[in-house]
Amino acid sequence: MQVLPPALNDLIEAFGLLPGVGPRTAERYAYYLLRHGDQTSAKLAAALQALEDGVGYCSKTYALVPAGQQLSDLYTDPSRDKKLVAVVAEPFDLVAIEKTGQFHGTYHVLGGLISPIDNVGPEQLHIKELIKRLDDDKVGEVVLATNASVEGESTALYIKQQIGDRKIKVTRLARGLSVGVDLEYADQITLARALEGRQAV
Amino acid sequence: MQVLPPALNDLIEAFGLLPGVGPRTAERYAYYLLRHGDQTSAKLAAALQALEDGVGYCSKTYALVPAGQQLSDLYTDPSRDKKLVAVVAEPFDLVAIEKTGQFHGTYHVLGGLISPIDNVGPEQLHIKELIKRLDDDKVGEVVLATNASVEGESTALYIKQQIGDRKIKVTRLARGLSVGVDLEYADQITLARALEGRQAV
Repeated sequence: MQVLPPALNDLIEAFGLLPGVGPRTAERYAYYLLRHGDQTSAKLAAALQALEDGVGYCSKTYALVPAGQQLSDLYTDPSRDKKLVAVVAEPFDLVAIEKTGQFHGTYHVLGGLISPIDNVGPEQLHIKELIKRLDDDKVGEVVLATNASVEGESTALYIKQQIGDRKIKVTRLARGLSVGVDLEYADQITLARALEGRQAV
Repeated sequence: MQVLPPALNDLIEAFGLLPGVGPRTAERYAYYLLRHGDQTSAKLAAALQALEDGVGYCSKTYALVPAGQQLSDLYTDPSRDKKLVAVVAEPFDLVAIEKTGQFHGTYHVLGGLISPIDNVGPEQLHIKELIKRLDDDKVGEVVLATNASVEGESTALYIKQQIGDRKIKVTRLARGLSVGVDLEYADQITLARALEGRQAV
């Protein structure tokens, strides 16, 4: 017997494709849209359709750009220091760094991290392009801003090897206690890193 | 400076309209769709557009039906007992009851609960239609399957008053401890209800 109309089941199923969305959450979204008229649905549908045609990648930094735009504003802006490059795994990582308002260099998006398990090798990432850019732009410092995971660390190591004996300062984001975190609740690895990176006061 | 393309910002904003979706979750959904090609986006967009035109309400039970269908299968199916009616607040509530496979009566969806704070009075709900249906279908039992909230209880009470001295058995879903829940973790009200509804063994 048909408990829900097929159109609603289809929508619940489609929402279920999103990461972390189970059947209950998908039902909740679908039912919310059903109750709140078609304005919200139409807005979401239009945004979805515009996505593919509206987004491109910067040919230099691989950051996301509006379709048709060659280079990211974060690269072309004259106030950004092209000799300082932060290397991130994914396009959204640079949003997090931008939000701090503390970084005035440029970015390089790798498009992932080296992960043999997932069949991702260095050649699938934009590492070659990074190395070329280091020479082209006479980069003075590379900040390896990848995650502190196994993949993040080994990708950072690989890039450091590729940079080789070029006269470039290679740095990592500092690891330590999060601001506001109590010592007793910090995990072992973070605490070990915090000790390792201890600073003179 | 433009950190993300407008098309992506629009999608993040649209996802943010869904209940319980904050900026981080919306970013996660949008970025997932960006990475996983336009097949998922297209499927979701199509489902959203089909929603409004694909869903109607049963003119008798107010359950959701495919557009153009007059009555819900849950009402017209000859195996369903029309003399037994479960009254629920929202269309999705009946899905939960259907999943138990234990109920073989029919449903009546109120479309909400009486809530003076939200300006919802009895006249906005399908209560009048329920009373008419009780007489038309010669209903023998009404199960008031509304939530155990203040609104659910007062709506149940109001319906009981409207049924008046008709020879109809009016029941509520049993309240008590959830199956598998330890006594010590049960909240006070649930425990009080469980005591109140204690059964001979």
